Amino acid sequence: MADRNETYRGADAAVVGIVGTGLIGAAWTAYFLSRGLAVRAWDPAPGWEGRLEGFLGPAMADLAAVDPEAITGTERLALCCTLEEAAGGADYIQENAPEKLPLKQDLLARIDAAAPADVVIGSSTSSLRATDMQAMCANPARVLVAHPFNPPHLLPLVELVRGEKTDEAAQAAAAAFFEAVGKAPIRVRKEATGHVANRMTAALWREAVNIVAEGIASVEDVDKAIRYGPGLRWAIDGPHMLYHLGGGAGGIAQYLEHFGPSQERRWKELGDPKLTDAVKKALVEGVAAEARGRSIDALARRRDDALIDLLRALAKYEG
Amino acid sequence: MADRNETYRGADAAVVGIVGTGLIGAAWTAYFLSRGLAVRAWDPAPGWEGRLEGFLGPAMADLAAVDPEAITGTERLALCCTLEEAAGGADYIQENAPEKLPLKQDLLARIDAAAPADVVIGSSTSSLRATDMQAMCANPARVLVAHPFNPPHLLPLVELVRGEKTDEAAQAAAAAFFEAVGKAPIRVRKEATGHVANRMTAALWREAVNIVAEGIASVEDVDKAIRYGPGLRWAIDGPHMLYHLGGGAGGIAQYLEHFGPSQERRWKELGDPKLTDAVKKALVEGVAAEARGRSIDALARRRDDALIDLLRALAKYEG
Repeated sequence: MADRNETYRGADAAVVGIVGTGLIGAAWTAYFLSRGLAVRAWDPAPGWEGRLEGFLGPAMADLAAVDPEAITGTERLALCCTLEEAAGGADYIQENAPEKLPLKQDLLARIDAAAPADVVIGSSTSSLRATDMQAMCANPARVLVAHPFNPPHLLPLVELVRGEKTDEAAQAAAAAFFEAVGKAPIRVRKEATGHVANRMTAALWREAVNIVAEGIASVEDVDKAIRYGPGLRWAIDGPHMLYHLGGGAGGIAQYLEHFGPSQERRWKELGDPKLTDAVKKALVEGVAAEARGRSIDALARRRDDALIDLLRALAKYEG
Repeated sequence: MADRNETYRGADAAVVGIVGTGLIGAAWTAYFLSRGLAVRAWDPAPGWEGRLEGFLGPAMADLAAVDPEAITGTERLALCCTLEEAAGGADYIQENAPEKLPLKQDLLARIDAAAPADVVIGSSTSSLRATDMQAMCANPARVLVAHPFNPPHLLPLVELVRGEKTDEAAQAAAAAFFEAVGKAPIRVRKEATGHVANRMTAALWREAVNIVAEGIASVEDVDKAIRYGPGLRWAIDGPHMLYHLGGGAGGIAQYLEHFGPSQERRWKELGDPKLTDAVKKALVEGVAAEARGRSIDALARRRDDALIDLLRALAKYEG
């Protein structure tokens, strides 16, 4: 078993199979192409090829804006006629179907049947468990969650979660693959609702909703508090490291010693809001005020433009 | 009462009184000087003048790196011999004493006695209530919390919180003042432990601790999940706006309709960790592994350098 790590294709994978080319699959396709990989894509929906190509133009322009050395051509993209064609010729496969368990179980079983035995298969799911998804696979050991964060062509995070039958070496190979192509993979150790990042996102949003529900601050001021305060730090360091830097000369050990009890008291005072009609109304009206007439498309474009500038600015602080 | 807003000095304030020049007061001093304001500073600790001047050099270099038009000279700084000298000649006063209620009550009463009646007095407190702090003031209506976020010379957020006796017009004048000098003030509507931002920070950290305590992911992977995922977005948009952008064409209304129930279920699955000795040990050891031998000073310098680059990159997206 010691050499098990070498039985899966990882850092040297050159061809990626993409099954499902909606927004997530299309973003993955753009990213892998931009890094010089070949992509073999397939989707069951009629007309998917045109929609994918329409998505790739702007997404690859985004990627070129982040990294002037990114590849912008689509010569290495193969539009496949069957799932088996996409999966059969790949070194790594990323599945991006809608969040329906029977559908994913079926697709993953088909991918598993078509892919070489040493190819790792990742699912982009945000809400399903690898243990459930791999249930119909003949070789479940190489099936895992590989969850990106929206927009996936720009955000580096990939959460790798094993199911009960997933080989640890398959997770290690997937991590090596994503690191080699410039993503930031994490190895989740235990299946949990929301994996890792979305658990923290949900925890933060629960209190953001509570602050509005309790009348402590407006929707716009809650958002302002994050983006002009801790949000700027979270783009640079995670929460544990930030308490290390906020603990004085003794770091997080000193912080826990001095402020641990007051943090535990503060945790008790956080809210447990319900999304009642009144709360939903306050959120919807508050966001409308904050948007000041700007469309969702315009706001999303602004976010992605800012993300590109931010990724460029932070590139030198990697690692 | 309609004209009450005009009875306090706000956007046109040109002289700031700084009472207490520890790390927070010194950072405020650097910021106000860099924006062309005059600062009248005072601190009771022997040798404070030298420590303040030692802090100003690097802090004003940081500010010049963020904004090439920032003022870097300290000609407008007056080192005052008494609290009354600092407060008596100011258009706005920022108090930055240690977080001890009797000390703050006493200082604020003295500032209140020395300052012209139309001058707003803000306290940098993160943990005390304005209602308690203003208790000994003859004119409590102009006393409020004006809480910055660390490092205060770089992070724009200022939380303005009224006590029971604070005039709404004083809060409005403080907001006008901070906006005029380039900060991002929010008007908190109700006193609450942690004001606004630190409530959300605490909520996120509670789940970050839970993920480590439950063995879902390592300290380093939790931090990586934030900084390569949602943290990059929170530097640009707050949580409510991000759900608006993640809700499809119908925005947050559609999001709440489709995913509100699943969010409420997810909230129920979040953890309620205790900072036991075992959990504290896991956090301390995990952060040590993540630091890879880098000192706290080196990590804090890296964070501030990255913050400067990030603020420069995002300057064009303000407003």
